[in-house]
Amino acid sequence: MIKVGVVGATGYAGAELVRLLSRHPKVELTMLTSQTYAGKPMWEVFPHLYGIVDNTLEELNIPKLVANCDVIFTALPHGHAMPIAQEVMKKSKRLIDLGADFRLKDVNIYQAWYKTEHTAQLLLNNAVYGLPELYREIIKQSVIVANPGCYPTSVILGLAPLLTNEMVDTKTLIIDAKSGVSGAGRGLSLKTHFSETTNNFQAYGVATHRHTPEIEQELALLAGNPVTVSFTPHLTPMIRGILSTIYASLINNVTTEELTAIYRQFYQGERFVRVLPAGMYPTTKGVAGSNHCDISVTVDVRTKRVIVLSAIDNLIKGAAGQAVQNLNVMLGLPEDTALDFAGIYP
Amino acid sequence: MIKVGVVGATGYAGAELVRLLSRHPKVELTMLTSQTYAGKPMWEVFPHLYGIVDNTLEELNIPKLVANCDVIFTALPHGHAMPIAQEVMKKSKRLIDLGADFRLKDVNIYQAWYKTEHTAQLLLNNAVYGLPELYREIIKQSVIVANPGCYPTSVILGLAPLLTNEMVDTKTLIIDAKSGVSGAGRGLSLKTHFSETTNNFQAYGVATHRHTPEIEQELALLAGNPVTVSFTPHLTPMIRGILSTIYASLINNVTTEELTAIYRQFYQGERFVRVLPAGMYPTTKGVAGSNHCDISVTVDVRTKRVIVLSAIDNLIKGAAGQAVQNLNVMLGLPEDTALDFAGIYP
Amino acid sequence: MIKVGVVGATGYAGAELVRLLSRHPKVELTMLTSQTYAGKPMWEVFPHLYGIVDNTLEELNIPKLVANCDVIFTALPHGHAMPIAQEVMKKSKRLIDLGADFRLKDVNIYQAWYKTEHTAQLLLNNAVYGLPELYREIIKQSVIVANPGCYPTSVILGLAPLLTNEMVDTKTLIIDAKSGVSGAGRGLSLKTHFSETTNNFQAYGVATHRHTPEIEQELALLAGNPVTVSFTPHLTPMIRGILSTIYASLINNVTTEELTAIYRQFYQGERFVRVLPAGMYPTTKGVAGSNHCDISVTVDVRTKRVIVLSAIDNLIKGAAGQAVQNLNVMLGLPEDTALDFAGIYP
Amino acid sequence: MIKVGVVGATGYAGAELVRLLSRHPKVELTMLTSQTYAGKPMWEVFPHLYGIVDNTLEELNIPKLVANCDVIFTALPHGHAMPIAQEVMKKSKRLIDLGADFRLKDVNIYQAWYKTEHTAQLLLNNAVYGLPELYREIIKQSVIVANPGCYPTSVILGLAPLLTNEMVDTKTLIIDAKSGVSGAGRGLSLKTHFSETTNNFQAYGVATHRHTPEIEQELALLAGNPVTVSFTPHLTPMIRGILSTIYASLINNVTTEELTAIYRQFYQGERFVRVLPAGMYPTTKGVAGSNHCDISVTVDVRTKRVIVLSAIDNLIKGAAGQAVQNLNVMLGLPEDTALDFAGIYP
Repeated sequence: MIKVGVVGATGYAGAELVRLLSRHPKVELTMLTSQTYAGKPMWEVFPHLYGIVDNTLEELNIPKLVANCDVIFTALPHGHAMPIAQEVMKKSKRLIDLGADFRLKDVNIYQAWYKTEHTAQLLLNNAVYGLPELYREIIKQSVIVANPGCYPTSVILGLAPLLTNEMVDTKTLIIDAKSGVSGAGRGLSLKTHFSETTNNFQAYGVATHRHTPEIEQELALLAGNPVTVSFTPHLTPMIRGILSTIYASLINNVTTEELTAIYRQFYQGERFVRVLPAGMYPTTKGVAGSNHCDISVTVDVRTKRVIVLSAIDNLIKGAAGQAVQNLNVMLGLPEDTALDFAGIYP
Repeated sequence: MIKVGVVGATGYAGAELVRLLSRHPKVELTMLTSQTYAGKPMWEVFPHLYGIVDNTLEELNIPKLVANCDVIFTALPHGHAMPIAQEVMKKSKRLIDLGADFRLKDVNIYQAWYKTEHTAQLLLNNAVYGLPELYREIIKQSVIVANPGCYPTSVILGLAPLLTNEMVDTKTLIIDAKSGVSGAGRGLSLKTHFSETTNNFQAYGVATHRHTPEIEQELALLAGNPVTVSFTPHLTPMIRGILSTIYASLINNVTTEELTAIYRQFYQGERFVRVLPAGMYPTTKGVAGSNHCDISVTVDVRTKRVIVLSAIDNLIKGAAGQAVQNLNVMLGLPEDTALDFAGIYP
Repeated sequence: MIKVGVVGATGYAGAELVRLLSRHPKVELTMLTSQTYAGKPMWEVFPHLYGIVDNTLEELNIPKLVANCDVIFTALPHGHAMPIAQEVMKKSKRLIDLGADFRLKDVNIYQAWYKTEHTAQLLLNNAVYGLPELYREIIKQSVIVANPGCYPTSVILGLAPLLTNEMVDTKTLIIDAKSGVSGAGRGLSLKTHFSETTNNFQAYGVATHRHTPEIEQELALLAGNPVTVSFTPHLTPMIRGILSTIYASLINNVTTEELTAIYRQFYQGERFVRVLPAGMYPTTKGVAGSNHCDISVTVDVRTKRVIVLSAIDNLIKGAAGQAVQNLNVMLGLPEDTALDFAGIYP
Repeated sequence: MIKVGVVGATGYAGAELVRLLSRHPKVELTMLTSQTYAGKPMWEVFPHLYGIVDNTLEELNIPKLVANCDVIFTALPHGHAMPIAQEVMKKSKRLIDLGADFRLKDVNIYQAWYKTEHTAQLLLNNAVYGLPELYREIIKQSVIVANPGCYPTSVILGLAPLLTNEMVDTKTLIIDAKSGVSGAGRGLSLKTHFSETTNNFQAYGVATHRHTPEIEQELALLAGNPVTVSFTPHLTPMIRGILSTIYASLINNVTTEELTAIYRQFYQGERFVRVLPAGMYPTTKGVAGSNHCDISVTVDVRTKRVIVLSAIDNLIKGAAGQAVQNLNVMLGLPEDTALDFAGIYP
């Protein structure tokens, strides 16, 4: 059994990790940490785990954590995974970080967008951007997996076939993304207060959201050229799910059916990316509760644009599920171990 | 592999059965029928099953169905399971009916509340009320399992320890129950229309709901005496979940802690009933997506009443999950086969 | 113009008061106070009031407040209205308190349930329980109006005709009440966190909620005898609305139609109480956004119980609207001044 | 008093009209028609109007309707207002059509997008596009007012200052719009079924929605040149509200503050358009229940694009409220007669 630690187990991504890992046949949940709830049993904080997860939450003690665990998942605000990564390197363990600390290869960009110093720059060479559909082989051998952000996951998977095949003008990329409220975490704020958010729809972080450089980095690698995008996230009155609506100008004439075929070929054999038949659009409910990313492509002949729709569950394929998928890749297990379920509908 | 048919596969209970059974290691989904969608693939109606369930929906053909399947699940309006049951008996197959046709032992009561003739009265002797926590041994050998209604499941499990131990005055039972909207099914009506139901809370079927005689039958068996209850269901603006708030006058003085201990003893060893520690109340979110029934008991010393709270997911423990649990009992499998998951939270 | 102050203007009840009073033809909004947002314009906190309410929020300064205003509304946690009431008395102004400080006539009961000392006991004689349908004449001349709690409003209006006419056994009263989340206020907590509350239904304060003694006081006055009730509140995943489901054993045989007629007679001429025709049940959506209380009565002949359903908008008839209604009564204005609107539907 | 008829009074836009007009001091609700509910009182269909609107619903009888009413509102599917308009012209009455029949000036475009013949082409000269902020003077004297679509209202008001001032490249306009479910009407469908729509977000009508030509017509008039746009509507799990996120490439450098000032000047004196201060974004909750359109503009210097956010209540400024505003313009009344209220929050 692999001994696993989850740091930040009582945030939504952390708790989802615990739920998924509790059913993983090769994993032993060795240590769960929580700043707020240390000393309490996990089920007292998350009643769905009553009778299922027996762990008591602990204060974070980095040496103890790294000594006791083979693989460590960090689900923390940015900046907090760096010291853990240092210790992981020293002790030759492995780290899957659900935060932003190891996603951006350019430290200057990290510091400009996150307004904080990067204190583990040397480790960036040991880190891989953990999108298995693109970087599976590198993930297998990496010490640090930088689990992608939720929005970037939906956007990069949605655009990869177009950019790889050089089919769109990369100067025209506009990403209008919508997320459920769980993406804002379990921390209390008016933005996540029931009466403020229910029956409400709003944009936030217009032209300033921190997932922008992460998206641009990965799209540039796919396109082979620098890419600048407009990215507008919106808060949607639902718990789980992201739908990204992506616009790009097509370079050549192509039909919806042809594009759909190109996408299907690109994602052939992928367990978790479902390219929908032409005319069927993804919905967040169709993926909620699962590790799927559902994608459709539609050509608008009037404007010569393509509209890509890409849907994920932000807590699963956008966070905890993808992290487990990365674990499976690292361990050489079938990629859907502990992830072999359909979403919950309705 | 057990060959299984699901009749009425595109209602919510039917689709949930298909989802659960698609992961059952001993089951082969042999036949899925749908009146509305016959000829279409299941995933076209339920996008979460795209790539997971390949069956095409068929018209119901009873002889063919029974010939091809070992066990048949019916998820149909009342009255429609009777002819299927006749054929199942003839061919020595087995039936799990999620409808009301075989729940009431007294045909007159059935006919009075359901306003329709019972055309398979002889089969009632071969039927068992399929609440495994009470009737496990009989279920093992029954031809027909009458899967309980959603409300009755929450109520009967909530009251069984009190009635068995003769702790309450059975003339004082008041059940105030609240259900998510999926309980009203996938059929279209203003009651289930998004804009009418969202941000709305209402009672329905006041003093006339058809689950009343089912509740009374089972409570009477537990109490050893006839029982008449007040039962008021309410429509709650959420998708899944039932919470029943149950009031009863206590015969003797007893504390919350003592009652909790009695409940824990009663349900000892039960995989799916979770008696919560004193002071912790069940929530529908704590059970949504799982086969659990969460129960708390609180003594109100001012009024000498006990307040029982009982929560289930109406589509799982209240329908499809319980049906799979019954299948497992019938087949001698571990009761949580294909049901060994926590709920989804948040 | 009447000069009005609202203390606690940025809670939900306070903000609703400001919205209603901003359209009141006899009122000038003279002073709005807020502990959290003092110094900001009201519209920065509540965007719906942008361009409509120009007031800047102020720190509470009791002498200044009372000097500058004719009528003061307090929408504060319990305990905080007492010092303001003292000053109001001294300066011969008038107070409408939306909190609990002047609702209970018995100081011992107040102190037992609210766990705090009552420091303005002498003023209780100058206070009236502000339910205009019962106490209109006294309200006209009172210095202090104790605006009723949201749950008690729905319950007392729902039971008044039955108790006044001595039609039920007061030992059998059970009140199962359900409230929207705005009733829990604008303060942040996990109970009001979007992802915890959406798609969730739960009881809280079982057998211990502070509205219990308020309900019992008023029911006892109506019945002419002490009354003890079971009262269970529930949190419902909607923003506005309370539905109380009330059970009582009938003393004599009576039909639904007869009871409905008795209710209609009792509330004849009342602008805001709507007794629904037999067979029509109130919904929270039918009253949301209005000052109405919708009531139905149903006799269950099987159990000889009556089931009363009573619905209000907790922020309007349950708080700010009733406060404005009380203001109108105090000032001798038509009772529906600034309240003459239907609810918003859907 | 102006005698008013509402045709299609039991759809959501129709019912909202009835609610608003019931409080209009110059209006008498003379005739309400409904195909589905003729013969029933309005309040039986819409319980919020119990005790407020006494009208009984009638079958549509065009000659009788036009004879008895001075102004007629039609809230019908496209195609159905044409015969009523013919009669209105003959009898010199006036019509406000909330449908699409008189919005498009080019009959060929109407027929191409609506797939139906236009049978009242001669009347198009007597019709005006009823957006008072742009066409107030013409509305005053028109026989037929084509009340704008909900999406177009938000988009045209959001873009008018930019296009009038020739500040953006009209070939780059991308409109990503999100609507509450009430926009899909009261007709039953799976798209509006509670359990399918709650906690779900999805696009629909990608590149094919019928509001596209309406938007393009009006933007072209503002720009002085033909305009082609990408327009993608999305269904959002909330009842009321539209937020349109609009992207356009700026021709010259300009700051957010400069643009905001240009918008404020453009809409100076407009009662219902609120240009928000720089840094404050509109939310659908901030306008829900009111006739406001809230707008923000943000310049993204990285991409040289402007992002306009425009929010309305789809049933008020997007339908019934705007229709009442048009009535007020036609009658020479203050434009906010019966519309002088803030939204409801939360």
